[in-house]
Amino acid sequence: MSAAAAPTDDKAAAEAPVVLLAGGSALPELLIAALERRGRAVKILAFRGFAARALARRADLVIDLIDYKRALAALKAWQPSEIVLVGTVTRPKPIAFMGALSAYRNREEIAAILGSGDDGLLGGVVRVLEEEGFTVGGIDRLAPELLAPQGQLGAVAPDSESWSSIARGLAVLDALSPFDVGQAAVICAHWVAAIEGPEGTDAMLRRVQRLRRGPRLRATHGGVLVKTAKREQDLRVDMPTIGPKTVIRAAAAGLQGIAVGAGTTLIVEIERTIHEADRRGLFLFGVDLAGSPPQSR
Amino acid sequence: MSAAAAPTDDKAAAEAPVVLLAGGSALPELLIAALERRGRAVKILAFRGFAARALARRADLVIDLIDYKRALAALKAWQPSEIVLVGTVTRPKPIAFMGALSAYRNREEIAAILGSGDDGLLGGVVRVLEEEGFTVGGIDRLAPELLAPQGQLGAVAPDSESWSSIARGLAVLDALSPFDVGQAAVICAHWVAAIEGPEGTDAMLRRVQRLRRGPRLRATHGGVLVKTAKREQDLRVDMPTIGPKTVIRAAAAGLQGIAVGAGTTLIVEIERTIHEADRRGLFLFGVDLAGSPPQSR
Repeated sequence: MSAAAAPTDDKAAAEAPVVLLAGGSALPELLIAALERRGRAVKILAFRGFAARALARRADLVIDLIDYKRALAALKAWQPSEIVLVGTVTRPKPIAFMGALSAYRNREEIAAILGSGDDGLLGGVVRVLEEEGFTVGGIDRLAPELLAPQGQLGAVAPDSESWSSIARGLAVLDALSPFDVGQAAVICAHWVAAIEGPEGTDAMLRRVQRLRRGPRLRATHGGVLVKTAKREQDLRVDMPTIGPKTVIRAAAAGLQGIAVGAGTTLIVEIERTIHEADRRGLFLFGVDLAGSPPQSR
Repeated sequence: MSAAAAPTDDKAAAEAPVVLLAGGSALPELLIAALERRGRAVKILAFRGFAARALARRADLVIDLIDYKRALAALKAWQPSEIVLVGTVTRPKPIAFMGALSAYRNREEIAAILGSGDDGLLGGVVRVLEEEGFTVGGIDRLAPELLAPQGQLGAVAPDSESWSSIARGLAVLDALSPFDVGQAAVICAHWVAAIEGPEGTDAMLRRVQRLRRGPRLRATHGGVLVKTAKREQDLRVDMPTIGPKTVIRAAAAGLQGIAVGAGTTLIVEIERTIHEADRRGLFLFGVDLAGSPPQSR
């Protein structure tokens, strides 16, 4: 491995870089830092309107999500060792993908992809890149230190009731695994209070917070957020993610803690996430899922 | 069967009556009318704050939900042929059941019941009544004409995409069957847009309406509401229910129609419900579920 080079440094071009197709959140910066620690050359292709401003400034190229031709030209010029999809481009206008996909697929196939959930949507992008001969990698392999480790992460341990709720939450998510739907659920006293849909984890936690004001959940104290990858989930396409905001929202919803799948869930700003959990008295636990956990393919 | 007697007529006492433990919604009145058509004697025990005012006025007894002793005394005096739980007492303060249950169960058992979802909660009431020697019946057997019949109910038929979404919705609900959670889901273009939690069908449809404003669902036109009983669901305790309001909310959420389990779903004001669906161009379909449909036990 060569000595670390600033990712925007043209001299790094000698080594086949890891190319980040970067959307929003702090995750792209964290991945860049992790790759730099490993001495990997990095190129950043940032999506306009999704990537954070600071990231866009240091990016090698900033393009519109629909500008498939420019993206492809850049990728071909850079000859990456692998490409990583990182950061949120959640709920983009599907039309943004139409241009990219229409070069390869007919309208019916596009409609099928658009109608097949987020995984199907981003999975389509991965397929197109692979058809072009590129290797698409996953954060779980490139920078495993960004993933939830196994075991208790903060100062608080789950109590036995929380363990019972965690088990139930994992069972609910496992039952939903064949469907492209929520990777998260909230269980209060063994009772399923919410299953995440396309609204996302934060909106689901706000829903629980509202339910908490109602008589039923008010009496049922505590509860846990369980979030994990689906069985067979392609972690290159979408990884369950939590961060400090998740902890804050979970606390506001009156929950006792958060359990995530160890090795399959990203924790954005892990130190701050643990700190926020500790100061609110929430547990944070990385569950080692029995059987074969999802893997990057 | 004796000649029909007004349900509040004391002369009807000669025949063992059907006793309605009546909560909110138009359903108790509909069931009373259905029982009267059959010449059954009826006694009404209305729950204060839940039963509609008109129903409370004609009720034989109006009690607080917690007033277990008065309810039991009335039931013993009336010697019902059977008791039916009808109308919504959804999301009462669990404390309302504490008095009733504490006579029979210790705190831990009560906590387990309260923590086991709505079915567990109302199932506890059914168990207590049965322990007292009463027969608890279901609307599906007493007045099957209040249930969704099989087949197309209005003027509109589901198209092939809707059928595909209906199948997916049924599969999602079937997967969730072991858990005391949503009896309803919204599928848009084969994509799970929402699963109902304790917020109820109307709130879930409002959520879909909000998602519809977002870019993802805006592009995915149509969608269906699928609502059905869980496998093994005790229909005496809780029956999936729709009505005119459900149709109005489904239309506002941009859905193309509603599919319900035939014979296991109540349709409040069926004529008006069909009328509202027809004038909005929504289909309304009673799906005959393969295998053994849930039955009153």
